[in-house]
Amino acid sequence: MTKENNTHSILIRNINWVSHQQNQVTNGYVIIENGTFSKLGEGEPTPQELDRVKQVKWGKGKWLIPGFVNTHTHTGMNLQRGYSDQLPLQQWLQQKMWPFEANLDREAVAAARGLAMVEMIKSGTTTFLEMYHLFMDDFAEDIINSGMRASLMRAMIGLCSREEQDAKLKEATHFAKTWHKEANGRIHTMMAPHAPYTCPPDFIERIVEVANDLSIPVHMHLAETLKETEDHIHTYGLHPIQHLEELQLLNEVDWLFAHAVHLKEKHIEIIQNAQSNISISHNPISNLKLGSGIAPIKMMLEKGIPITLGTDSVASNNTLDMVEEMRVAALIHKGINQNPMLMDEITTFNMATINGYRALQFEQVKGIVEGSEADFLLINQNEAHLQPSIQIFSHLVFALNSHDITDVYVQGKALMENRELLTLDKEKIIQEANAHFHRLEGLLK
Amino acid sequence: MTKENNTHSILIRNINWVSHQQNQVTNGYVIIENGTFSKLGEGEPTPQELDRVKQVKWGKGKWLIPGFVNTHTHTGMNLQRGYSDQLPLQQWLQQKMWPFEANLDREAVAAARGLAMVEMIKSGTTTFLEMYHLFMDDFAEDIINSGMRASLMRAMIGLCSREEQDAKLKEATHFAKTWHKEANGRIHTMMAPHAPYTCPPDFIERIVEVANDLSIPVHMHLAETLKETEDHIHTYGLHPIQHLEELQLLNEVDWLFAHAVHLKEKHIEIIQNAQSNISISHNPISNLKLGSGIAPIKMMLEKGIPITLGTDSVASNNTLDMVEEMRVAALIHKGINQNPMLMDEITTFNMATINGYRALQFEQVKGIVEGSEADFLLINQNEAHLQPSIQIFSHLVFALNSHDITDVYVQGKALMENRELLTLDKEKIIQEANAHFHRLEGLLK
Ligand SMILES: [Zn+2]
Ligand SMILES: [Zn+2]
Repeated sequence: MTKENNTHSILIRNINWVSHQQNQVTNGYVIIENGTFSKLGEGEPTPQELDRVKQVKWGKGKWLIPGFVNTHTHTGMNLQRGYSDQLPLQQWLQQKMWPFEANLDREAVAAARGLAMVEMIKSGTTTFLEMYHLFMDDFAEDIINSGMRASLMRAMIGLCSREEQDAKLKEATHFAKTWHKEANGRIHTMMAPHAPYTCPPDFIERIVEVANDLSIPVHMHLAETLKETEDHIHTYGLHPIQHLEELQLLNEVDWLFAHAVHLKEKHIEIIQNAQSNISISHNPISNLKLGSGIAPIKMMLEKGIPITLGTDSVASNNTLDMVEEMRVAALIHKGINQNPMLMDEITTFNMATINGYRALQFEQVKGIVEGSEADFLLINQNEAHLQPSIQIFSHLVFALNSHDITDVYVQGKALMENRELLTLDKEKIIQEANAHFHRLEGLLK
Repeated sequence: MTKENNTHSILIRNINWVSHQQNQVTNGYVIIENGTFSKLGEGEPTPQELDRVKQVKWGKGKWLIPGFVNTHTHTGMNLQRGYSDQLPLQQWLQQKMWPFEANLDREAVAAARGLAMVEMIKSGTTTFLEMYHLFMDDFAEDIINSGMRASLMRAMIGLCSREEQDAKLKEATHFAKTWHKEANGRIHTMMAPHAPYTCPPDFIERIVEVANDLSIPVHMHLAETLKETEDHIHTYGLHPIQHLEELQLLNEVDWLFAHAVHLKEKHIEIIQNAQSNISISHNPISNLKLGSGIAPIKMMLEKGIPITLGTDSVASNNTLDMVEEMRVAALIHKGINQNPMLMDEITTFNMATINGYRALQFEQVKGIVEGSEADFLLINQNEAHLQPSIQIFSHLVFALNSHDITDVYVQGKALMENRELLTLDKEKIIQEANAHFHRLEGLLK
C-alpha cells in the first residue's frame, strides 16, 4: 500500500455537523488530522485545539454531511450523454451505444472519465464504483491525481472464445491485484462479470474463484430487464439468482448486484439467506428512463438487504447526480406502494452515503464520527429552497440541490472549495470532452 | 387594464435560442421591444438593429428557452416545508397542516409568499397558479412588485353554513373581477372550489356560474387520493368527474384540474369529449411523496388531453423547482409503463412551459417566437453535466439543474441576472421566513 503524506490538519468551526447514526445536528466544530476526524465537538474549540491545527476554516451557515457514494456507474461512457434517448435497452445498446464505443480510443476514454469526475465532485460524490473494460490502469492513475475514492474493476463479457475469456480474466485479475488498496487506500478493486446474460456460468465460476483468492467482492448486473431474466429462465430453468445459488457461488464471496429489478420474494430470500455479504445497487433513474421497471426495494428493506444507490452511466440517466438519485429513490417507492411512510429520510440518506461505503468495503469511512476517514461535504443552507431552517434530513433528501454543495473533502483533503475544483481543470476537460465526442461521431458518418 | 411603461429595448446577441415548435436551436440574436420578441434572427444583427436598441447583452455559451409555468401551487404554505413528512394525506392535513395554518396571520403569509417567489425565480419559474384563501389582495400587489406572472384565485372550502359560503363566494368573485388582467396583463384570475370532497355540488354550481359570468376558468383539485374518490362514489354513486358532467358543469366554462390521479379510461373520455377547454395539472412529485398514486398520463396523452405540470406546495414536494418536476414526470411514466418511448423530450418540455401558459390562458405568451411576450430564461451550458453540447432538449429534460438558469425575464424585464434577483431581497426574505416560522411554531406549544 502506498502511503501519502497527509500531515495537514484542519479545524472547521461554527459548523452544523450532521450525524446520520443519531439523526442529529450539532452546532460545533470538527478537527481533521492525518485525513481522519480526530474530534467532533460541540460549541467552540479550546485555545489548545485552535493552536494545534495548521488551518482554521469557518463553517457559518453550513451543514457538514458525509459524501455521496455512487455504487454503479460506467464513467468511460460519459461522452454518450443524450446520445440516444427514447430506445428500449437492447436496441439502445446494439444500434447506438456499441457502434459508438467500438471507436473509443485511449484519449477519448480519458476525456470521458475527466468529464465524469468533474461532474461527480461538483455534485458531492466522493466515492464511486466504476465498472468498465478499457484503459483501467489510466483510471487508477486518475484516482491518484483527482483525490477521489473509487472501487475499480475491469468488467468482462464472456460471449467469446475461451482464449479471449482467458485474456480478459488475466487482465482483470492483474488489475485487481495491482491496484487494490492503492492511492493511500482510496482505490479498491472488485471482479466483475458483466451480467448473467453476457457471461456463461462456467466463466462466472472462474471469475468468482479469482475474487475468492483475492478476498475481494464481485460486482455484476442482475435482472435489469424482464426480457433478459425470462430468457435466462427459459435457457436454464432458473432465475439468475437461483442459478448463482445452485452453482454455490453466492456464499463464496461478497457480492454487489446492480439493478435487481426483476426479483420476486423467493429470489430476495435467497439473497437474505446467503452466508456472504450481499448488497444491492439500486439505480432508479436509469431503470425508469430505459423503461426497465422498478426494483422491489420495499420488500428488500423488509428482509434487511443492504441497499445502496447508483446512477448507472449518463447514457441512461442522464447525470451522475446522486442528489437526484436519492430523491427519486425516496419518491418512487412511496408512490408505487402508495405509502408515504416508506423510505424515511434517514433510511434514504444512508442508502446514498454510508451504505455505499460499506458495500464497497471502505470500512475506514464510517460517516461523521471520530476515527472515521474524513470524506465529507459542506452545504450552503442559505438558499430559499432550504428554508425554514429545520428538519435537516428532510431538506437533504427532498429539497437539496447538488449546487448547494460548496466543498468536497476526501481523506481530509479538499477536492472542491467554494465550488472551485482544486484537483481538476474543468474548462480544459469540458473542451476536450466535446472535441473527442465530435471526432468519434464523425467516424460513424 | 393598467399599462406599465415598457419602452426598454434589448438585443441579446450570440445566443442559442431554442424553438420548441420546430424542435430546433438557432445560433443568432433576439430583439425585445415593448416586452415582446420583435425579432428572432440567425447569425449577427445588422448595424441598424444594433443602433435601434437601448441595451445590448452577450449571450455567449447560453441557451435561451421559455420560462417554466407551475400550474398548481399554494405558496402561502411555503413556511411548511419539511414541517411534517411521512404521514398520509388526511392525517398530514388534520394533525399538522391545519393547526399550523390556523395561526397564520398577514405577516406570516407575506413571508411565505416572499420565500416562494425567491425560490421560483431562482429555479426559472416565470409564471404560476396560486390557489390560496388568505390575503389574496396582498398577493396581487406582490405580483406587481416582483414582476412575475400569475393566475391567482381565492380558493373556497364549502363545508360551512350558507352564510359563510356566500361570504367566501363574494370575496372570491370580487377578487377575480378586481385583478383579472391587471399588472400589465401579468395577473389572471380564476374561480376555485377547493375540491369535490370539500365543496357540496350546489356550491360548485354557484362558483361555476360566477366563472361563466366573468369568462374565466375554474380550477379545482380532482381525484387526488383513492379514498376521497371512493367516498364520492359511495355518497353520490358517481365518480367526481361523472358528477360534474351530470351536473352539466363541464361545458359551461374552461377547467384546469389538479392531480387527476384516480381516473379510469371512461373518466378521461368525459374530459376528452367536453365542449370546453379542460387541462390537467400533473403534480407527480407531490403525488408520489404523499403516496397518493400516479396519474394516468399515458392514457390522457393518447386521448389528446393537454397536460401541464405543477409542484403543489412545498409541504408535499418539497420544492417549487419545475426542473425537478419535469424530469420526474418524464421518468415516472417511462418507468411504470416500461416504455422508454413515452414522454419524449419535446412533449415533456412543452408540459413544463408552453402548455402551462395556455392552460392559464396567457395567450400573449407563445414561446420563443416573434410577436410573443418575452418570458424567457438564459441557461449557462458550460457545466460538465450538460456536455457534450448536443441534444439540447434531452439535456433540458434529463440533465438540467435549475441552478444552471442564470437569467429570468418576464415581459422583457429582467427578474434575475447572473443569478442575482433584481426585484426581491433574498437575504431579508429568508430571515423573515425563519422568524415567522419560529413565531408560529411557538404558538402551538
Ligand atoms: Zn450498468
Ligand atoms: Zn393542491
